[in-house]
This record gives sequence, structure tokens and C-alpha cells, in this order.
Amino acid sequence: MIPPRHREAINDLLLDYGALIDGDKLEQWLDFFTDDCLYKIVPRENVVQNLPGVIVLCENKNMLIDRIVSYREANEYNLHYDRHIISNIRIRDLPERDAYAAEASYAVYQTNMDGESRLFSVGEYRDKILIQNGAAKIKEKVIIVDTYSIPTLLATPL
Amino acid sequence: MIPPRHREAINDLLLDYGALIDGDKLEQWLDFFTDDCLYKIVPRENVVQNLPGVIVLCENKNMLIDRIVSYREANEYNLHYDRHIISNIRIRDLPERDAYAAEASYAVYQTNMDGESRLFSVGEYRDKILIQNGAAKIKEKVIIVDTYSIPTLLATPL
Amino acid sequence: MIPPRHREAINDLLLDYGALIDGDKLEQWLDFFTDDCLYKIVPRENVVQNLPGVIVLCENKNMLIDRIVSYREANEYNLHYDRHIISNIRIRDLPERDAYAAEASYAVYQTNMDGESRLFSVGEYRDKILIQNGAAKIKEKVIIVDTYSIPTLLATPL
Repeated sequence: MIPPRHREAINDLLLDYGALIDGDKLEQWLDFFTDDCLYKIVPRENVVQNLPGVIVLCENKNMLIDRIVSYREANEYNLHYDRHIISNIRIRDLPERDAYAAEASYAVYQTNMDGESRLFSVGEYRDKILIQNGAAKIKEKVIIVDTYSIPTLLATPL
Repeated sequence: MIPPRHREAINDLLLDYGALIDGDKLEQWLDFFTDDCLYKIVPRENVVQNLPGVIVLCENKNMLIDRIVSYREANEYNLHYDRHIISNIRIRDLPERDAYAAEASYAVYQTNMDGESRLFSVGEYRDKILIQNGAAKIKEKVIIVDTYSIPTLLATPL
Repeated sequence: MIPPRHREAINDLLLDYGALIDGDKLEQWLDFFTDDCLYKIVPRENVVQNLPGVIVLCENKNMLIDRIVSYREANEYNLHYDRHIISNIRIRDLPERDAYAAEASYAVYQTNMDGESRLFSVGEYRDKILIQNGAAKIKEKVIIVDTYSIPTLLATPL
């Protein structure tokens, strides 16, 4: 049985997650992760075939921070707006205290500077979320992208 | 007034429905239906013009099982991954005991083996859901696809 | 703290909003607005650069009614079906009594009379919603479209 306030905190976390990326508030987005977080993007082909290859691997929050800093300083290509549609959120209790598994489907659209909106990536989130001092934090975020062949530079987080 | 635990069971059912198809767990997906279920895919053009044509019609669970068995044994074309985005879920109480109407919008994306993700179908679900021994089951699933012209073989369920 | 019945009323409003447009029940859709409502469509480019240009501006319900009436009487182009996917709904309490801010992401698909479904617009809703006599009503609807370049005539509301 998941306490309603935990369920609400996890739901809000997952939805704000998308809103902060879309709103280009990536520094605030970093606050959603625990210091020892795992952030991983893996192609579904590899998950299905049990292959080890990943697209992005950050094994703690400092590695995530590095990505955002370098994006802020270096990114000159693929200027765009992101738009996340996050749906089908399902939350399960884990044996550990105040720990939950959350799964969701996502579709991310990008709009480029010529004004074209198009589908960028679809896939799913498999998160491990902890409730710490009443706040929900991401301990693990595994993003399974339905295709390896992402059409442009993966600049902003998924 | 819908009891919160019924609302939650129906929500979970609708969301797991998409997750099981996307995860290729079609045999588990079958468990969501009552034995005397109706599963029907109808094009919106026909609904609007009151025409009788349907795309898929299964009038009980055995017919659904047949579809899944033949998909497992015979499907060689249109290999792909599905991804459901199910949103705008609205639940209404029906006069019968423990019976509800649920409506939702969906977008289904398919990713083919060349790694292209694209929109496959958009439309809506109109479900009749029963609560039986605490579990939500689909008595009727009417899927209104916004267009008849589905670009490829309709192999996996919508 | 948002009373659960207010949260539910706002959620239902936002989801029915999309369903009524998609179902071509635009006259019923008008009932969701207060008489002194604001309905505004602004391109994200302008929001980001703080530019004043808007795509659509209705400063009260009569202006919205005019749009629907003229659509009913005059529209001969861009015949299509709409399909709204509304997700990432986030609701905040406002200082005023029974007033809330609601934000959501949307993707709208259109299906034309040749049977092609395609992405029409992605963006976000920023609403101010009032609870009046137990019913949720839209006082302000600001729709930020991710691109100005909407590919066809903006006939039906977003």
C-alpha cells in the first residue's frame, strides 16, 4: 500500500521532471537526483537482446552536473525546444523503506529554430525513487529509448 | 460517486493495458478481458456517418486469444516495437453494480527494425469495465481510430 | 493544500476540454469558460524573447463564441479530426480564494479527410481556474505553442 502523499510526491516529481527540461531549467532539474544517482539511456534493441551497450551513462550526480555544464558552455548545434509528454505512470512499492519503482511512457517532441515540430524520441522510464525528508528524489533513472538511431545530437536530457 | 479503490483499479488497468502490449506480454494482456468480452476497432469516419463497418471484431475472449496465437505463430511482417501514450482518462459510473465507463485518448508509436519511430495511430478508447472480486476487467473495448487508413498491417492490438 | 474535490474537478475540466474539442462539441466547450475569460495563443519564440505578438486573442467569452459561430458558418478548409493528448498536469493553489493555476503539456494530432494522421501542434497550457459553485471554470487559458509556424489554418481551438 503506497501512502497517498508518497504517490503524489512521485507523480509530481515525474511530471515536473519533464516540465523543467522543457522550460530549460536544467540546473533545477539536477536537484531531483540523489548524490549517488544513476542516470542511464539504453536502446531497447540492447535491452531485448541483453546487450550491454548504453547511449549515456552517468554514475553519480557530479557526472550529470558535468553534462549540464558542458551543454551550457559548448552547445551550438541542434538548438531547439523540447516538449515531454509523460504518461502511463505506474508506481510500485519496493522492499526497502520509502523506496518505490516508477515506470512511465514518454514521447519527446523537438521544435527547431525553423519552426518545425517533430517526434524526437519515444520510450519508457524505469525509475527508482526514494522519499527523503518528505521529498521524492531519483536514485535511478533508466531511460529505454525505442530506437538507437536518434536523429540528432542528444544535447538536452531525455 | 466512484469509490477511490475502483477508480485506482480502473486507472491501473488502462495504463497496464498499454504497458503489456508495449512489452510484448500479450498473453498477460488477455487476462484483462472478461470471457464474454467485446473487442472492436472502428474507424472514426464510420462512427461519424453511422456506418456499420469495423476493422477488427472479437466477440469473446476466445476470438482474442486466436488473434494472439496466430500473431505469435504467423507474423513475419511489420516487426516493430509499440509505444502507447494513453491520456485523458475519464471514468463514469454506470447504472449496473460495479460497472464503469472509461474513455481515454491514445497515441501509438511504432519503431521499426531500421530504427525509425513514427506515429502509428491516434484515436480513443471507449471501455466498459467491471470490478470482479476486487479486480478491474474489460467487458467492452471499443477503439475508435481517427483514420481507417492504417499505414501497415495491424499486427499487434491497439 | 488543494482539497481533493477541487483537484479532481480541475483534472476533469482539463481532460474534458480536450475531449469536447476532439468530439466537435464546441458549444459545450464554451461552457467551460467564465464570462470574463481570457483565451490567448502565443508562440513560444515570443514568450522566450519577451515579444508581444499573439496568434489568437479573445478577451472575453463573447469573443470566443464569435470564433465558434464563424467556424460553424464559414469553415470550408482544413476539414479534419482533432485528437488531444494532455499530460503532465500540475496544479498550484493561488492566493485568491478557490483559484488555482494549472499547467499541462499537450500534443494535438489532426487527421485529414485523406486519412492521414499527423502531429499538428505541441506546447503547453497555462490556466487560471476558478471553482464556482462547485464547478471548475477557466478564467484564463494561455496556450504556448512551441512553434509559430502552424502548418495549416488554425480552425478549431487548441
